[in-house]
Amino acid sequence: MDLLGYIDSKREDHLNELKELLRIPSVSAQAQHKSDIEKAARWIAEKLRAAGLQKVAITPTKIHPLVYGESLEAPGKPTVLLYGHYDVQPAEPLELWTSPAFEPAVRNGNLYGRGTADDKGQVHIHLKALESLRNTSGKLPVNVKVMIEGEEEVGSVSLWDFVQQNRERLKADALVVSDTAMLAKGVPSITYGLRGLNYYELEITGPAQDLHSGVFGGAVPNPITILAETIAKLHDDNFRVAVPGFYDNVAKLSREERKALSSLPWKEKEFRRMVGAPDLCGEKGFTIGERLWVRPTLELNGIWGGYTGEGAKTVIPSTAHAKISTRLVPNQDPARIAKLVEKQIRKLLPKTVKHKFEVLSTGKPWVASYSHPIFQKAIHALETGFGKKAVFIREGGSIPFVTQMHDTFKVPCVLLGFGLPDENAHAPDEHISLENYFGGIKSVAVFYEQLATL
Amino acid sequence: MDLLGYIDSKREDHLNELKELLRIPSVSAQAQHKSDIEKAARWIAEKLRAAGLQKVAITPTKIHPLVYGESLEAPGKPTVLLYGHYDVQPAEPLELWTSPAFEPAVRNGNLYGRGTADDKGQVHIHLKALESLRNTSGKLPVNVKVMIEGEEEVGSVSLWDFVQQNRERLKADALVVSDTAMLAKGVPSITYGLRGLNYYELEITGPAQDLHSGVFGGAVPNPITILAETIAKLHDDNFRVAVPGFYDNVAKLSREERKALSSLPWKEKEFRRMVGAPDLCGEKGFTIGERLWVRPTLELNGIWGGYTGEGAKTVIPSTAHAKISTRLVPNQDPARIAKLVEKQIRKLLPKTVKHKFEVLSTGKPWVASYSHPIFQKAIHALETGFGKKAVFIREGGSIPFVTQMHDTFKVPCVLLGFGLPDENAHAPDEHISLENYFGGIKSVAVFYEQLATL
Repeated sequence: MDLLGYIDSKREDHLNELKELLRIPSVSAQAQHKSDIEKAARWIAEKLRAAGLQKVAITPTKIHPLVYGESLEAPGKPTVLLYGHYDVQPAEPLELWTSPAFEPAVRNGNLYGRGTADDKGQVHIHLKALESLRNTSGKLPVNVKVMIEGEEEVGSVSLWDFVQQNRERLKADALVVSDTAMLAKGVPSITYGLRGLNYYELEITGPAQDLHSGVFGGAVPNPITILAETIAKLHDDNFRVAVPGFYDNVAKLSREERKALSSLPWKEKEFRRMVGAPDLCGEKGFTIGERLWVRPTLELNGIWGGYTGEGAKTVIPSTAHAKISTRLVPNQDPARIAKLVEKQIRKLLPKTVKHKFEVLSTGKPWVASYSHPIFQKAIHALETGFGKKAVFIREGGSIPFVTQMHDTFKVPCVLLGFGLPDENAHAPDEHISLENYFGGIKSVAVFYEQLATL
Repeated sequence: MDLLGYIDSKREDHLNELKELLRIPSVSAQAQHKSDIEKAARWIAEKLRAAGLQKVAITPTKIHPLVYGESLEAPGKPTVLLYGHYDVQPAEPLELWTSPAFEPAVRNGNLYGRGTADDKGQVHIHLKALESLRNTSGKLPVNVKVMIEGEEEVGSVSLWDFVQQNRERLKADALVVSDTAMLAKGVPSITYGLRGLNYYELEITGPAQDLHSGVFGGAVPNPITILAETIAKLHDDNFRVAVPGFYDNVAKLSREERKALSSLPWKEKEFRRMVGAPDLCGEKGFTIGERLWVRPTLELNGIWGGYTGEGAKTVIPSTAHAKISTRLVPNQDPARIAKLVEKQIRKLLPKTVKHKFEVLSTGKPWVASYSHPIFQKAIHALETGFGKKAVFIREGGSIPFVTQMHDTFKVPCVLLGFGLPDENAHAPDEHISLENYFGGIKSVAVFYEQLATL
């Protein structure tokens, strides 16, 4: 049977197997899921072996294990390093899921569940593409090294150490990653730019303990109010980040790129529908696409303090907290930005409170040229898999590892994304389009096949 | 045995009995404690009967039942209406309690547990004072009507209906309430002023669902940021509430009262120690005591939105919430203030978000003259019970019912408070000083005895 026919014949098997993986709640940020993480790592290792990879190993790290396997049976052919992650975002708030986060369910041509798009579903696309190539041709057309980590959603803490320790072994002609989204449904896409990500946590302490807001209110520093006043000063009226020096090294968009980006088949109306807010907002002087892809941001990801239950509690809490992140673009330096943000927050805080500012992770942005011939192979493979024209896009999300690999190994990084912008990757009802999942397996298989002729 | 000797002989019994009541987690704000609330109501009814009161009844209301009993065996003598509440604040955050909130424990001369000071311990002082009077004299020296509600911590929703429906029955020569604190340890106090309380909840909705902060960040309204920006604009740089009209009707403090308040034995150093913040703050132009007792405030009591768990989650949440309260002073009108606060918030919010503003409760402030002779009886009783000089004070907390009763029945309201400012009434490690608990029983018994000679 030919490759594409074989893949078509296996649709049901592939989907059922993916559901197995999705049922394992491998949430890397939550300690209670430690054993689920380990279970997911063993599952990945087993499927790598099933795809015919050798030297499959689960390597313990500081936090969660990394799974590695390789197939070097194509002498003289290019070597591809595939990267993905088997850990997922927390599923909370659980009550907002239509079907439970870890009980995968098909509805309206989509597969729902935490990790469907980010990134288990996309990792599985590669596992099944490799397996299909082996089952139809007896061996893989190129040399493949596969590295699937379990810490992506907590900042890939150990990944770089692993790479450094295995530098020779990981050498490849290209890095391939499927952890991004297509521009829109029916528009297969290759991502050539990602924003960097710094993630911070801020704790503000006023009184030494919670106080009665009647007995003490009016004369003591309220950490919630002070936290709000501090956050409010982190943006100016033009939605620019009001941290001195924040924009110092931001690269200016070239006229050519601005034009290319603005001519993409991107529909503002569709974007507005996805967001569902009364109106959009953003940095003055830039289009929506530019705000999302090429401009840096500061976003609040969480806030909490005081009484958050039902009804009333008249308390002035001792502490209030916020989770804050900055998305970075070339040529912002993550370490410098972290220092600038902390410095500004320290400057804004009154002397009535204490604070703790923690940098949970930092990550560089990445933007690359797509002139290398491998990108034409990728575009062709996507068009074969989907029967539709493929495009080059940038994305607002972050995969710090791509930047590090690109900087270190100086090889092309090919980001084949099979998610969609409304996939709810970090939110309830995360899903992957079945068209993209099945089209993805075909595209990736064709891509690996085509690489043999590079 | 004489009254005070009898009370001394019963210390252990009284304390053990109070612990029974404290073990019932009668949290009125949390639905899961419905049956505990009912248990506490039955407990109170039983003890009223034990103190010899008649017609003891548990009256169902919209939310939580009210317990009533009376003793009208002293014809020609004054009638006192006693008010208290058996419901308590939520105990969260539970992990901050030294000993569990509903397992009362004695340490350092204090009894710890939710409700020890607010208000179960103080209600129990009256129950045991009445019982002691009956057990030593065979009958009560005055007529007593006792009304203990279960909704004080959720805004006394049904209390006023009950009063209106039982207006004739509740007629009395004075209202007595023990739900306040003494100025300081060793300074028995009568409170002649309370602030009013309005409590609000604000919900802000940006995107229709949670969004990935990388994919969407920079182009969509973040409800946390917008909530913070809104809160930040509710105070000016002088810590005044920046709601137009908020101060319009605030009564000016007379020179005499300002002088009387400033000469109270109140120690700023002790207050700073209790608060434990790096510094205090408050409205410009007023002393700390004035900020606490005679000036209105706006405080944030809770805030939440987005990811609040461990680690990082890169989400732009759909909603963010705040619990806000205003403390009111004469002659602010609670309904008008609620409208002004809502109007200002609506004005401050950008058109990119939707919002929901809910008024959970409103309550008028109360300040009264203490020229009626009953206050001299009270001062004398406190000095007998504690062996120390008693003073007249105002307090920052709120008992809306006192205002309503005062306005309606035009009788003196005597607030005999046995809490202390550092009792943590709405916070972890709430406690009552044993000296105050036992001194309170004596004082209240002497007070009722003395009222016979009014």
